[in-house]
Amino acid sequence: GFATATQSNKVTIGLIPADGIGREVIPAARQVLESLPKSESSPRFDFIHLDAGFEHFQKHGVALPEETLARLRGECQGALFGAVSSPSHKVAGYSSPIVALRKHLDLYANVRPVASVAGDGQKQLDMLIIRENTECLYIKQERMETDANGLKVAYADRKISEYASRRAGQMAFNMALMRDKLRANVPASERLWQGKPKVTIIHKSNVLSITDGLWRETVRGVKENNPDLYSGVDMDEQLVDSMVYRMFREPEAFDVVVAPNLYGDIISDGAAALVGSLGLVPSANVGDNFVVGEPVHGSAPDIAGQQKANPIAAIRSAGLLLEHMGYSGDAARIYQAVDGVLREGLIKTPDLGGKSTTQEVTDAVCKRL
Amino acid sequence: GFATATQSNKVTIGLIPADGIGREVIPAARQVLESLPKSESSPRFDFIHLDAGFEHFQKHGVALPEETLARLRGECQGALFGAVSSPSHKVAGYSSPIVALRKHLDLYANVRPVASVAGDGQKQLDMLIIRENTECLYIKQERMETDANGLKVAYADRKISEYASRRAGQMAFNMALMRDKLRANVPASERLWQGKPKVTIIHKSNVLSITDGLWRETVRGVKENNPDLYSGVDMDEQLVDSMVYRMFREPEAFDVVVAPNLYGDIISDGAAALVGSLGLVPSANVGDNFVVGEPVHGSAPDIAGQQKANPIAAIRSAGLLLEHMGYSGDAARIYQAVDGVLREGLIKTPDLGGKSTTQEVTDAVCKRL
Ligand SMILES: CC(C)[C@H](C(=O)O)[C@@H](O)C(=O)O
Ligand SMILES: CC(C)[C@H](C(=O)O)[C@@H](O)C(=O)O
Repeated sequence: GFATATQSNKVTIGLIPADGIGREVIPAARQVLESLPKSESSPRFDFIHLDAGFEHFQKHGVALPEETLARLRGECQGALFGAVSSPSHKVAGYSSPIVALRKHLDLYANVRPVASVAGDGQKQLDMLIIRENTECLYIKQERMETDANGLKVAYADRKISEYASRRAGQMAFNMALMRDKLRANVPASERLWQGKPKVTIIHKSNVLSITDGLWRETVRGVKENNPDLYSGVDMDEQLVDSMVYRMFREPEAFDVVVAPNLYGDIISDGAAALVGSLGLVPSANVGDNFVVGEPVHGSAPDIAGQQKANPIAAIRSAGLLLEHMGYSGDAARIYQAVDGVLREGLIKTPDLGGKSTTQEVTDAVCKRL
Repeated sequence: GFATATQSNKVTIGLIPADGIGREVIPAARQVLESLPKSESSPRFDFIHLDAGFEHFQKHGVALPEETLARLRGECQGALFGAVSSPSHKVAGYSSPIVALRKHLDLYANVRPVASVAGDGQKQLDMLIIRENTECLYIKQERMETDANGLKVAYADRKISEYASRRAGQMAFNMALMRDKLRANVPASERLWQGKPKVTIIHKSNVLSITDGLWRETVRGVKENNPDLYSGVDMDEQLVDSMVYRMFREPEAFDVVVAPNLYGDIISDGAAALVGSLGLVPSANVGDNFVVGEPVHGSAPDIAGQQKANPIAAIRSAGLLLEHMGYSGDAARIYQAVDGVLREGLIKTPDLGGKSTTQEVTDAVCKRL
């Protein structure tokens, strides 16, 4: 079981910077959370530092320490994860700690909003990607064999279950309704998405008729079996290859997009290119009892420790964390402060063509909270 | 075994239009082949029409008739495949004929050049994607199980072999050298790729350490074990998710890109978005004894039969077919005629913002041969 808040509004957040620029952007996100104006209903934060990552593995032989998992489960209501370095060669015994965390905490949906800020000169889009987060090729069941000629042959299992597909699908339809509700508060002229809410199902069932066939039918079933709940949400589908094409040609055609794990991984990086930088795109790994915010970018060893990292993805991930913990007012404050800084366009890190430091961007966001 | 040409320069080409706009673009490609000026060294074509496709399946219960395979093997030196429709629901007994063709004829590399024509207003790129064409999730070994709660659980096998990875890798390095040689004939100011030839290996070995680990090591080994042959070719790598991001941000950073089957499928559609239309991107399915040219686009049922389809992908695929059959002079004529029409920008189909018909574009290309 997970820890529940003992005192009203008291929230304990695990901070797992992990590798590279994770160590710069997680403190930035923390600073923003601590700078939120305090009201009756807003949370009081406690932060605890937790270890994980490839560097931790190199020093201590373990990428996701038992203690980190135990304290997340026992003391925290949510967490922020920085970024993890990938060894360029296979390293015996090493396995990605973020993939393990998603699995151990049953964080079944990875929620990735990708939206352009009006006037940033990029393609206009306002998309929410829901990535199934526990299976597909990420179950890491792999084996090595040898063929008749002594050559190596490797296999991996790709798992798609009705159970996980349904949970991801439900998240997608629920988020489509939620977004529609929130949009009602935005002046029509500022809304990028004008139509009825829509869920687009990504698959490759023309090749994977059994696995992606099950995915497709199960997600379709979420709407078809719940007409009372979801009749207000449109549904369509795209093959994963066409999706990458269409997303770049017509990004405005998508509202909520729901995808199996690996396709979701690829599509969200593609969508990030459309808004100008991976340094802008946040995510939340969401389960029924726990949320881990996580910027979509990697550990960027080439710029680590130089105050060049864009903290916005991590700061927005802190917003998503609050949103999925039920503090949507505080989350909205964070999103608006970030959008304000981006719209003004004066203070920006090198990935956006600026010269500001991680700290300067963070301070600018805090000032607008 | 495959048929070998009995009379010098006599070439028999199987034409498999299959579904939808395949029936318009394959005749267009044929017209271009027939319009090539005849020289001593250029091929004399015989064409035979062969059946395949989803519509054929609906009528006759088989998507790739035995006769088609037998005549390809027995009578043809190469073929052109149009496009195949995908049923939106799982249809018992149906399986994609193009995937089957690649497997039965051992067409182990799918060669997909994606290049912008200078001045077309799109991102500038000149990339060659080599897609492994016989394994990965395309082996279609899938099974359905039931979990303890009676819910469905599906599995697919992903296969990566040393044998297939090496063949794809060798094709990539050989093509990198070949492109470098051909570039020497292009004035420096018109070359998009200026540097040493380069092969970029796509993988996701941070998650799939065994399968993609084997892919990565084997393709790296092609260069490392053949320094005499390939020391002139640079090598780097990209995780598949980062690749989709970087390709959109910096498409000029890539020369030859080599990818496992499914990643290659996704990346090539993404690259097509960068040159303005899927209707421009050709491919060749290449084996040691046979080549099948195939436009990367689908059957586009929404515009089929209306003379709206862009024939250029199919025409360029006919060029690739000739190139890989050893007629590089005739292939170059086709490429230059197409580039000329595109550069002039007057005669174009609706996907490129024009109003010309399939026939008008085809005639314009023929006029420039
Ligand atoms: C680091 C890697 C294992 C991870 C993934 O593939 O899920 C990353 O790309 C992400 O998107 O969170
Ligand atoms: C039609 C489909 C099976 C095919 C593939 O996935 O290989 C297509 O997308 C392609 O790129 O040739």
